[in-house]
Amino acid sequence: MSGASHVWYCNGQPLPAGGLDRGLQFGDGLFETIAVRSGRALRLTRHLDRLEWGCERLGLPRPERRVLERELTSLASGHDEAVLKLIVTAGKAGRGYARASAPELTRYSACLPWPTGLPEQLSVTTCKLRLSEQPALAGVKHCNRLEQILARREVDSRSCDEGLLLDRDGRVVEGVSSNIFIVRAGQLITPELRGAGVAGIIRGLVLERAPALDIASKVSEIRPEDILEADEVFMCNSVMGIRPVVSLDVDGQQKQWEPGKLTCQLQRILEQEN
Amino acid sequence: MSGASHVWYCNGQPLPAGGLDRGLQFGDGLFETIAVRSGRALRLTRHLDRLEWGCERLGLPRPERRVLERELTSLASGHDEAVLKLIVTAGKAGRGYARASAPELTRYSACLPWPTGLPEQLSVTTCKLRLSEQPALAGVKHCNRLEQILARREVDSRSCDEGLLLDRDGRVVEGVSSNIFIVRAGQLITPELRGAGVAGIIRGLVLERAPALDIASKVSEIRPEDILEADEVFMCNSVMGIRPVVSLDVDGQQKQWEPGKLTCQLQRILEQEN
Repeated sequence: MSGASHVWYCNGQPLPAGGLDRGLQFGDGLFETIAVRSGRALRLTRHLDRLEWGCERLGLPRPERRVLERELTSLASGHDEAVLKLIVTAGKAGRGYARASAPELTRYSACLPWPTGLPEQLSVTTCKLRLSEQPALAGVKHCNRLEQILARREVDSRSCDEGLLLDRDGRVVEGVSSNIFIVRAGQLITPELRGAGVAGIIRGLVLERAPALDIASKVSEIRPEDILEADEVFMCNSVMGIRPVVSLDVDGQQKQWEPGKLTCQLQRILEQEN
Repeated sequence: MSGASHVWYCNGQPLPAGGLDRGLQFGDGLFETIAVRSGRALRLTRHLDRLEWGCERLGLPRPERRVLERELTSLASGHDEAVLKLIVTAGKAGRGYARASAPELTRYSACLPWPTGLPEQLSVTTCKLRLSEQPALAGVKHCNRLEQILARREVDSRSCDEGLLLDRDGRVVEGVSSNIFIVRAGQLITPELRGAGVAGIIRGLVLERAPALDIASKVSEIRPEDILEADEVFMCNSVMGIRPVVSLDVDGQQKQWEPGKLTCQLQRILEQEN
């Protein structure tokens, strides 16, 4: 009897030697989704900063920043409106959970078409799926996204634009692919991300810009009832920027808003920076 | 300015068209690790049953069982001792969390060498990382495994064989890549897997075989202190089968055992079935 080989097959076809990507085996990687306008990758520095921080959190080596910058800049070039996606994984390996002592990162990148039909205003449903609490991964834009995939199925089944995700204690965390802010008495509030959630680039920017705009802001616990009592609600991510939430169903209640003044102001300011 | 394409690059090299595997993007898939002895994939039916159940839990279509059976049987053939790994993912797609309405599964398979240096007896450390609670994914052998990867790093840093994983409430769930049983007053006890953990094939077999062997067994909550008071402790998975735990550090205490009578009996019975 012969010994086993290391050949992997994809749908029956042999793959190049050297193991199978740990991204594919375990979601052992990180990603960034970057808006492109007029041939330029927006907020590239912030995206790469977050990626580096994520690598550190996951115990992965630091990616070669200049290589990433060069590649993403080149991919973006010539595109009026597009979305760059970058994935960095722990690279090819055998089958176990243990990484090699010095894993060689693999990067995947693409410049994809700008999504059609991005809604100007968001109708949001509260997902039944509750986010699990994992401080070791909270904030990180990692590639373990089954929760978001299951939550997205709920959103689609209810024909809404976005889903609101709570944690197991009923605290508001984020949207399925966005962060959330509420405005109450002129103050911006967004949830802490200690146990779950992604530390979004636009979320960070809003918090950073607020003082100069003379807008009070805080990061704190938010409950669904706080949203129902909010004057304005918006959600944000790097592709859609800031979008007002105009309807939300939560706890069997349906609440509606007009796009708020602060929301529109922040939206305008961020778009001018693009 | 031109529109963006759908071309993905891996380390700068263009990949075949058609999107990037959702396994790679999000860990949107499932896997099985199957022992091979004398050219035969052991307990293949059980593995494929679990895979089908996992697909259902994740909302994925049912894989073509005959194709999988044929491929795995053929891969195993001629190998004295080996490990089959099968991964089934939600297939190639664009970048969003939403799946296509009828995703085409992609399968990855390999017949890999039998691991060298599998310890006969396990020295186990309790991981600091606590498993998060996600009933929607509990029991499923899915490809979102960053928790196990981080936990495995702890185990390696302490030069142990395996790590014990607790949930956020301090309940025992499983090992990093195994399930756990304790024996107390002749009774087998293994943790519930309602909030976390993988429903292991050997775990299922042990619970199923116990009555015919006149061994009492139950699935219930286990705390670290229950392990410290146990007469025997063993861990199990499809590759190593059943292995006695001979040392465990938990809560700053170090406990040692000799391989127990029941553990050795079950180990022998399972090996005879191979």
